[in-house]
Amino acid sequence: MKAEVLDLTELQAQLAQFAADRDWEIYHNPKNLSMALAGEAGELLELFQWKNIEESQQLSTTEKENVADELADILLYTVRLADRLQISLPAAAANKLKKNAAKYPVEKSRGNALKYNRWQKS
Amino acid sequence: MKAEVLDLTELQAQLAQFAADRDWEIYHNPKNLSMALAGEAGELLELFQWKNIEESQQLSTTEKENVADELADILLYTVRLADRLQISLPAAAANKLKKNAAKYPVEKSRGNALKYNRWQKS
Amino acid sequence: MKAEVLDLTELQAQLAQFAADRDWEIYHNPKNLSMALAGEAGELLELFQWKNIEESQQLSTTEKENVADELADILLYTVRLADRLQISLPAAAANKLKKNAAKYPVEKSRGNALKYNRWQKS
Amino acid sequence: MKAEVLDLTELQAQLAQFAADRDWEIYHNPKNLSMALAGEAGELLELFQWKNIEESQQLSTTEKENVADELADILLYTVRLADRLQISLPAAAANKLKKNAAKYPVEKSRGNALKYNRWQKS
Repeated sequence: MKAEVLDLTELQAQLAQFAADRDWEIYHNPKNLSMALAGEAGELLELFQWKNIEESQQLSTTEKENVADELADILLYTVRLADRLQISLPAAAANKLKKNAAKYPVEKSRGNALKYNRWQKS
Repeated sequence: MKAEVLDLTELQAQLAQFAADRDWEIYHNPKNLSMALAGEAGELLELFQWKNIEESQQLSTTEKENVADELADILLYTVRLADRLQISLPAAAANKLKKNAAKYPVEKSRGNALKYNRWQKS
Repeated sequence: MKAEVLDLTELQAQLAQFAADRDWEIYHNPKNLSMALAGEAGELLELFQWKNIEESQQLSTTEKENVADELADILLYTVRLADRLQISLPAAAANKLKKNAAKYPVEKSRGNALKYNRWQKS
Repeated sequence: MKAEVLDLTELQAQLAQFAADRDWEIYHNPKNLSMALAGEAGELLELFQWKNIEESQQLSTTEKENVADELADILLYTVRLADRLQISLPAAAANKLKKNAAKYPVEKSRGNALKYNRWQKS
């Protein structure tokens, strides 16, 4: 199987060109982009909000396309925001994976929803 | 300059292994993952909510690291959710870019916040 | 049973005083408040994200207190934002209930998740 | 000036009747309602995302109506969720105001965005 890769350099160039062509750079500051990203995450929620857990795993072709569109929106704003702040997403992801492994040691976390749960934070 | 790429195949394998090691697959259904993703988008918002637009562009090193962590969380849940639903993120992103280009023609969209704005939808 | 009422006039006065005492009015513009509200909605999500539907109905006392705190945060920002824009929440709620009744006629909507669902919008 | 009050008892009865008429109670569990609420908060964000702070304070009549509709949606889901979990919103709000006063003492918080800011949490 060939590995699936996302060419971030090309994607960032495409997004920058798209904004430049429309004189939209002025809108694409980090504050606004964080709002746009969260707005798309809200649209993703709306696709799942009235489905139960089983139904969320058995999407029709149309439903799956709608989810793909929202995930793409979220990904594009994530990539654009990272670009505006010169954040490397591969480095940030690798760093976060390492932090998560330290935060949730296998022995203490196994099958334990409570440990995994934000409730414990409070 | 070398292109920056994100190896989705490897990242999905790492996330799947992380969940399997902790018996967390049961939590990682699409409905739950959409909530976790939106929760992380909310944390990103909280980093920018009291900053004005200029301040959002002038982050300290610590602030930038916090943003990188939240973007990583969002990216990881996006990748994990795509994996659970067998959605190809590069294909979804390319498809969405094409749709956006059709939806916002350059001539009609140039410098026009109103056209770009959700207000117009209503 | 005595009716439970929320005194919006008093609540808005308390919130305005709280902000004035701290010189925080400058932060409380509609854009920022919409972000703060959505951030709190994200915290609410985090309380439910790994619970299944049954578990979300059987909260412990502590969990219920955490939910109450997040609902209060959401309510307070809703009230504050309405105040800043001079929007009457009772009028807005009554108006929205009327719109919803027209949008979802009983006969067509009964027990019909699909009609109720955002999927249908696309 | 007459005080503006929100009759929660009546509003909860209206929302319960609305759901009962359509056999929608099954959808209105706390997990689903938290998602619906956050989805509406996302729609609110979309109304402000490309506006700068000044523009967010100078809405047209139509824009203000759109904001009122989204605030109403958020309020209605907040009230419905509180009802499902038998949480008193006036008590929760009063309790949260007290916590906030303790968390942000006037002297230490005055005009100090940093203290108020989530950045400090990390």
